[in-house]
Amino acid sequence: MSPEQNSSIMDALRDIVGPRVSNSLAELCCYSCDASQVYGLPECVVRPLTREEVSRILKLAYEYEIPVTARGAGTGLAGGAVPVRGGVVLDMSGMNKILEIDVENLQVHVEPGVVVEQLNRALRPHGFFFPPNPGSSSVCTIGGLISNNGSGMRCVKYGTTKSYVLDLEVVLADGTVIRTGSKVLKSSAGYDLTRLMVGAEGTLGVITAARLRIAPMPKRRRLVMASFESAELAGMAVVKAFSAGIVPSACEILDSTTVKVLRRCDPNIVLPDGDILLFEVDGTDLSTSEDAKRVSEVCAGLAQSIRVASDQREMSEIWAARELVGAAISRLDPSKSRIYVGEDVGVPMKEIPNLMRKVQEISDSTGIPAMKYGHIGDGNLHVAWFIDVSSEEEWSRLRRAADMIHRAAIELGGTVSSEHGIGGARAGYMEMQWGPALEIMRAIKRALDPKGILNPGKLGL
Amino acid sequence: MSPEQNSSIMDALRDIVGPRVSNSLAELCCYSCDASQVYGLPECVVRPLTREEVSRILKLAYEYEIPVTARGAGTGLAGGAVPVRGGVVLDMSGMNKILEIDVENLQVHVEPGVVVEQLNRALRPHGFFFPPNPGSSSVCTIGGLISNNGSGMRCVKYGTTKSYVLDLEVVLADGTVIRTGSKVLKSSAGYDLTRLMVGAEGTLGVITAARLRIAPMPKRRRLVMASFESAELAGMAVVKAFSAGIVPSACEILDSTTVKVLRRCDPNIVLPDGDILLFEVDGTDLSTSEDAKRVSEVCAGLAQSIRVASDQREMSEIWAARELVGAAISRLDPSKSRIYVGEDVGVPMKEIPNLMRKVQEISDSTGIPAMKYGHIGDGNLHVAWFIDVSSEEEWSRLRRAADMIHRAAIELGGTVSSEHGIGGARAGYMEMQWGPALEIMRAIKRALDPKGILNPGKLGL
Repeated sequence: MSPEQNSSIMDALRDIVGPRVSNSLAELCCYSCDASQVYGLPECVVRPLTREEVSRILKLAYEYEIPVTARGAGTGLAGGAVPVRGGVVLDMSGMNKILEIDVENLQVHVEPGVVVEQLNRALRPHGFFFPPNPGSSSVCTIGGLISNNGSGMRCVKYGTTKSYVLDLEVVLADGTVIRTGSKVLKSSAGYDLTRLMVGAEGTLGVITAARLRIAPMPKRRRLVMASFESAELAGMAVVKAFSAGIVPSACEILDSTTVKVLRRCDPNIVLPDGDILLFEVDGTDLSTSEDAKRVSEVCAGLAQSIRVASDQREMSEIWAARELVGAAISRLDPSKSRIYVGEDVGVPMKEIPNLMRKVQEISDSTGIPAMKYGHIGDGNLHVAWFIDVSSEEEWSRLRRAADMIHRAAIELGGTVSSEHGIGGARAGYMEMQWGPALEIMRAIKRALDPKGILNPGKLGL
Repeated sequence: MSPEQNSSIMDALRDIVGPRVSNSLAELCCYSCDASQVYGLPECVVRPLTREEVSRILKLAYEYEIPVTARGAGTGLAGGAVPVRGGVVLDMSGMNKILEIDVENLQVHVEPGVVVEQLNRALRPHGFFFPPNPGSSSVCTIGGLISNNGSGMRCVKYGTTKSYVLDLEVVLADGTVIRTGSKVLKSSAGYDLTRLMVGAEGTLGVITAARLRIAPMPKRRRLVMASFESAELAGMAVVKAFSAGIVPSACEILDSTTVKVLRRCDPNIVLPDGDILLFEVDGTDLSTSEDAKRVSEVCAGLAQSIRVASDQREMSEIWAARELVGAAISRLDPSKSRIYVGEDVGVPMKEIPNLMRKVQEISDSTGIPAMKYGHIGDGNLHVAWFIDVSSEEEWSRLRRAADMIHRAAIELGGTVSSEHGIGGARAGYMEMQWGPALEIMRAIKRALDPKGILNPGKLGL
């Protein structure tokens, strides 16, 4: 935009949202990144509070062909909310009202800026919860979660975000407002526009309200922690458990490197040595007792130790150890930072041991240390790579490692992202992962956003 | 098509599939209808056996702009597989191989002509099943099920077909073959083309293979049958059960009219009088015992009788009575036939009593008798309307009744079809149900099928 155009656009935006627009460099910088390595400075930031404001802003942007990038809490790990082509950032975090809790119809109606944990706090007194629980639940917004089809460790039983979205109110590129679904729990009436918007990272429209299905809170959880001599044996135990018909509410792995790092960080940590599986089961007191027993039996011939945790304090301690992973390495070596690249690959469950071996080879050959953990029950491995960020040479090796892991995942029949999204960070792999299907995504993008103003530069479109 | 063009197209099709093509009127008639009131005669029928054949047929049809309608078993209730604009019918029922059963990755790979029950028979020895179970499971094909997002009575716990499709191989309008997903259980990498194809009724592409998620077979089922003085009380019991966090594996209603008809049909039938709810719970011996007890407690203050059935024979008898519904009326009065119109509306669960009242009013005002039953746990009511098909006047009243129920469902925040699809039968309600979102569906249709050859005349596109 030219300075004159910029100034007249700023005036027009002020007409719509009053003082809730800014082009001060300090503010723009705050909106130029997320938790990934993708950067881009917007020309202005607008903070709409209503659907009508969003619609008017998009009408304006459509007329002047200005890029518009919607943003929730900015916790993304792939640059999805980063305005890589400049233009307007729509900060949706102010639209944060829970509009309706309708337990009798098993649903809630929320604005996109509602924080996931805020929703769960509101549901707790009703005995219900919203199952998708990404690591960032305490800060990330529903809008961002939907736009990335986020999930977290409970989706092995409960499914990802797309299983919980009944209806979206979406403002399209030209400002038109549509509803993609309804209040009914099931429907077979035309194209599933709701699911098309889930995971679209704001490239097809801006979500201004969402109707979400909720689930009854389980009465009881139990945790089986089993340690193995190798990741292969752990992988075998997972396959054996699933083949036996066990459906855990979480199924996580911490590889032995991760466990060693955690132990050096905190010698009193409650984890045994080896490659560790955490199987959580939920249900009633009786059913979880049965399920935990079955999990233990499945692990019995393969594990070197098995422990069943049933009381809240014990389970919290174990989960706290699991959550220490992100922070562990920097406590150990302050010169190293974890960089989020190649951190979210997914493969068919049975290929997890192969993927783990592959990651170790990549780590060895590039000399970049890696901790491997994640949602093994979904085939989703989070790899934590650590480098000295002041060394350009380490950055270069890290980029090579990330490229190798993305290619490995695709070769194993998998995906470059299971739950963090593509954004700008992984856009280069879309062709390789999708082949001719990418052209169809592009055709849909052109059909819904002919001027290409919605979050351009993302998803390899 | 002109006779000359028709003949040269027939030659070209013979080049592709050999003798598996026909334009004999007797055969064409067999392909001119399904179980609905929608009719259309094709110009020829082709029975492909491979993806390559389908791709070559579509290339040809694309070049000559000939309508192509894919068909599975023809059990549809909305005319989805009926070639209303003539052209080619692709009979996909010959592509009926189960390509792979991969229990360890919780998935199967099948051709679209596989019958749902055939898949379940193959899965049984592994202890797994494919949860969607429409009433037509013993004959309908996976391709048709996917194209209509079919479900059945267990989706209240397990979700509809779309929750089970991981990957589709699809031949597009111009013959291009794409894959919409992969073997991984979860992914966040671009638009969800898989879900876009589910429920699209063959208007965006022809499915030539599907990778489906499977679930472990429950060890035990129990059935709680409760009868109520009114449908309102039954509706209240359902809402109370769901609000209390109970997740039944089926939750069906038979209204008192239905029960009366069934009893006149078979005086020894195992159903009590009144409006009846059937709650099925599944899991282990212990967990189903707990769940059945909770359901009984919830119903206690509202029901006039409650019975828990635990042994297989007892449950089978009750389900058999439920399945008699379709045939009952014609045994009672041979001059009446059940006509499938307005038979699949859905509303938010809490609105079910309102909907049932509304249907009774429509039945009274039009003088068309109606039995009301269905998947109350999903808000999906199946209404069975009965007329003397030789009376044009009864047809006219029936059409009025169907129109009224579709409008009522939309007014109550619902859908004109929960699981049977739109096809040609309900296409006229798409504008009313979707408003401006229908334009977006049309834009997607144009983007993927610019010549409009794929199943034209459906979905109100």
